[in-house]
Amino acid sequence: MVKIGIIGVGTVGTSVANILEQNSDIIEARAGKKIVVKRGVVSNLNKQRNVTIELSNNVDDILEDSEIDIVVELMGGVQEPYAIVKKALEKGKAVVTANKALLAYHRYELQALAGDIPFMYEASTAGGIPIIGALRNGLSANHIGSIMGIMNGTCNYMLTKMFKDDALYSEVLQEAQALGYAESDPTFDVGGFDAAHKLLILASIAYGIDAKPEDILIEGIEQISQTDIEFAKEFDYKIKLLGIAKKAHNGIELRVHPTMIPKESMLAKVSGVMNAVMVVGDCVGETMFYGAGAGGDATASAVISDIIDIVRGNQGPMLGYKKGLESGFKLLDSSNIASEYYLRLKVDDQSGVLAKVASTLGEFNISIESMLQKPSSDDKAHLLFTTHHCKESDIQNAIKALKALNTVDEGIAMIRIEK
Amino acid sequence: MVKIGIIGVGTVGTSVANILEQNSDIIEARAGKKIVVKRGVVSNLNKQRNVTIELSNNVDDILEDSEIDIVVELMGGVQEPYAIVKKALEKGKAVVTANKALLAYHRYELQALAGDIPFMYEASTAGGIPIIGALRNGLSANHIGSIMGIMNGTCNYMLTKMFKDDALYSEVLQEAQALGYAESDPTFDVGGFDAAHKLLILASIAYGIDAKPEDILIEGIEQISQTDIEFAKEFDYKIKLLGIAKKAHNGIELRVHPTMIPKESMLAKVSGVMNAVMVVGDCVGETMFYGAGAGGDATASAVISDIIDIVRGNQGPMLGYKKGLESGFKLLDSSNIASEYYLRLKVDDQSGVLAKVASTLGEFNISIESMLQKPSSDDKAHLLFTTHHCKESDIQNAIKALKALNTVDEGIAMIRIEK
Repeated sequence: MVKIGIIGVGTVGTSVANILEQNSDIIEARAGKKIVVKRGVVSNLNKQRNVTIELSNNVDDILEDSEIDIVVELMGGVQEPYAIVKKALEKGKAVVTANKALLAYHRYELQALAGDIPFMYEASTAGGIPIIGALRNGLSANHIGSIMGIMNGTCNYMLTKMFKDDALYSEVLQEAQALGYAESDPTFDVGGFDAAHKLLILASIAYGIDAKPEDILIEGIEQISQTDIEFAKEFDYKIKLLGIAKKAHNGIELRVHPTMIPKESMLAKVSGVMNAVMVVGDCVGETMFYGAGAGGDATASAVISDIIDIVRGNQGPMLGYKKGLESGFKLLDSSNIASEYYLRLKVDDQSGVLAKVASTLGEFNISIESMLQKPSSDDKAHLLFTTHHCKESDIQNAIKALKALNTVDEGIAMIRIEK
Repeated sequence: MVKIGIIGVGTVGTSVANILEQNSDIIEARAGKKIVVKRGVVSNLNKQRNVTIELSNNVDDILEDSEIDIVVELMGGVQEPYAIVKKALEKGKAVVTANKALLAYHRYELQALAGDIPFMYEASTAGGIPIIGALRNGLSANHIGSIMGIMNGTCNYMLTKMFKDDALYSEVLQEAQALGYAESDPTFDVGGFDAAHKLLILASIAYGIDAKPEDILIEGIEQISQTDIEFAKEFDYKIKLLGIAKKAHNGIELRVHPTMIPKESMLAKVSGVMNAVMVVGDCVGETMFYGAGAGGDATASAVISDIIDIVRGNQGPMLGYKKGLESGFKLLDSSNIASEYYLRLKVDDQSGVLAKVASTLGEFNISIESMLQKPSSDDKAHLLFTTHHCKESDIQNAIKALKALNTVDEGIAMIRIEK
């Protein structure tokens, strides 16, 4: 029998405890041993919880219990769980966590601390989708060309809704909040930070890169307008918030932003709160992993699969590498990213303006792929462009220059395109 | 350093040898050790091959070589590779195979023979898609509700083409043969047998069921007509050859057949030679795994990931279970399958015929969901039905009774529907 302790018995912790009991027949057959929750630790013992396990409010009741072999950390946050899992590892206990923020900041320290002790985190990224296992094991023969993932269900629900119902961002956000898909302060989701944490974890396994959220380009979906969606429809795109890791000739691009993708691509077909991660490898070609990115039971599915793996004697290497990669990959500075771009400008509806805008783009070596002019309700016009491949710094400088033109309004929107 | 031997150096074997060399940097970093092919065994030494490894035509040059730790079996067939991998296991060598036929017939004997020696077979099912790992490890907490997979690229290419270009089966088959997607005798692919082998492997991991190809319902795509495709389009279906494993209340359904699925489902969006497997688990919900199901490099990606896992010290349990499942699942006889059905009849174009057909269906408790009548070029009419859920034996008996009616032609087509 293997005994585990759960630190944090909220939605996911409750699911873990209950599924270990409900599915104990099949879990024991697969793992080879009975897996039992000896204790859960919570901060508030008075809160009603839908579990039958013994609860304590003292984390040492797990950490100091020599009968407990595996510590499951589901409390969230960064500093407090970091201290707790460190202590668990020092005691020789295996750790399973669903905590993406902890890993986004401390995964390399944790790998060093863990050494040969299992440290597993399948649930940290894309919920129930076994993408960590796929990247670490199933695709391990490949140089990874790119990872592109819909890794935030809140954003995907909102963008799907905005596309389907031609609804405003603000309306859809309210609805998502009412449904419990978005928090009252939605910044962590809609601002792209949640997706960024997950992207950093995947990028470590693919490329061995130790980047922090502050090091990479992160943009949210807050600025997506109905005009952008109309344009996307007209040119057969969908707009998705993607986490992108990509091998360029001079380094690795890591970025999270709304992205126009062809509506016939597999990723474009992922709708509602579902998640999907597309991985392109040099041997395997294009693969995609699809499923629920959140929710108690789906996340618990990943947590328990890690526990079973540990019981079976399987483990890491935690971040996918047994030893450093000699040719080591380098994170590319955001300004050196290359992409195709969509631009939306509001301009004075008068002659010569389009010529001026086009020549400004030309000055920054930006070549136009398609262009559309639409009337606006005021005395203005919308100019919508897509560009051929160009450098991020060029597009940023061009936007600055365009804003300085007195016939162009300040609010220029830009969305990157991936084909 | 770990030395391996490759038995069978055809398309996949060549890719394995070459990728181990080309990607040796990243493979060594991930595995922790250098992996080197010591020798390949082929039947014909005179044939030109695009590899630099040493070749022999004597399998004992691998089996009797104590320096070789891992035997990679890529020769195909059943009896000969069975004898060879048995001998390898007896010598204590780990085995990696891509051979679905070998596993469809001998997976349980091989599991017993292997014991604690690693025996891996990720490449046997859906090529480069790491679906074995996903089912065995990533989804191990779940009772599996169903598996539905597009697991034969030849059939999916042909059905995609028939849908897109309104092309005849015979035309598309010729084209697939010209492109090398179909063999000159295409039966193994278009008859559903290839998909059945793969389905049996997945069903073992999901349900612990030891079934052979002869035990399950297997139908191919040879009878799909343009009328069926027209109907499918009209009612927003696509037709895919699916391998289906499904938990019903009284046992496990295993079946391979052309299937109508809603065109908006994720599986329906998988086109061309690509494969995808949808797995529904009781905790995780709906997941899907998508990628190339064949091809030298994609299959080699899976073979090498198994080798790396073995070098890392990770392995099975080979078929997903460390010990037998007490509640053991039972294979359901084909006649007890329940499904919705599509029926196509050609009938005399005269009054009373529809009434007779409908009442015959009623006699077998088959309730009609939708119906369409289309004129035929001769003096006949096509009657197209979809039914509500009913038993396979009822639909089979109803078809027999319909054929006996003198106003109904012999050639009644039936396609199962999954929603």
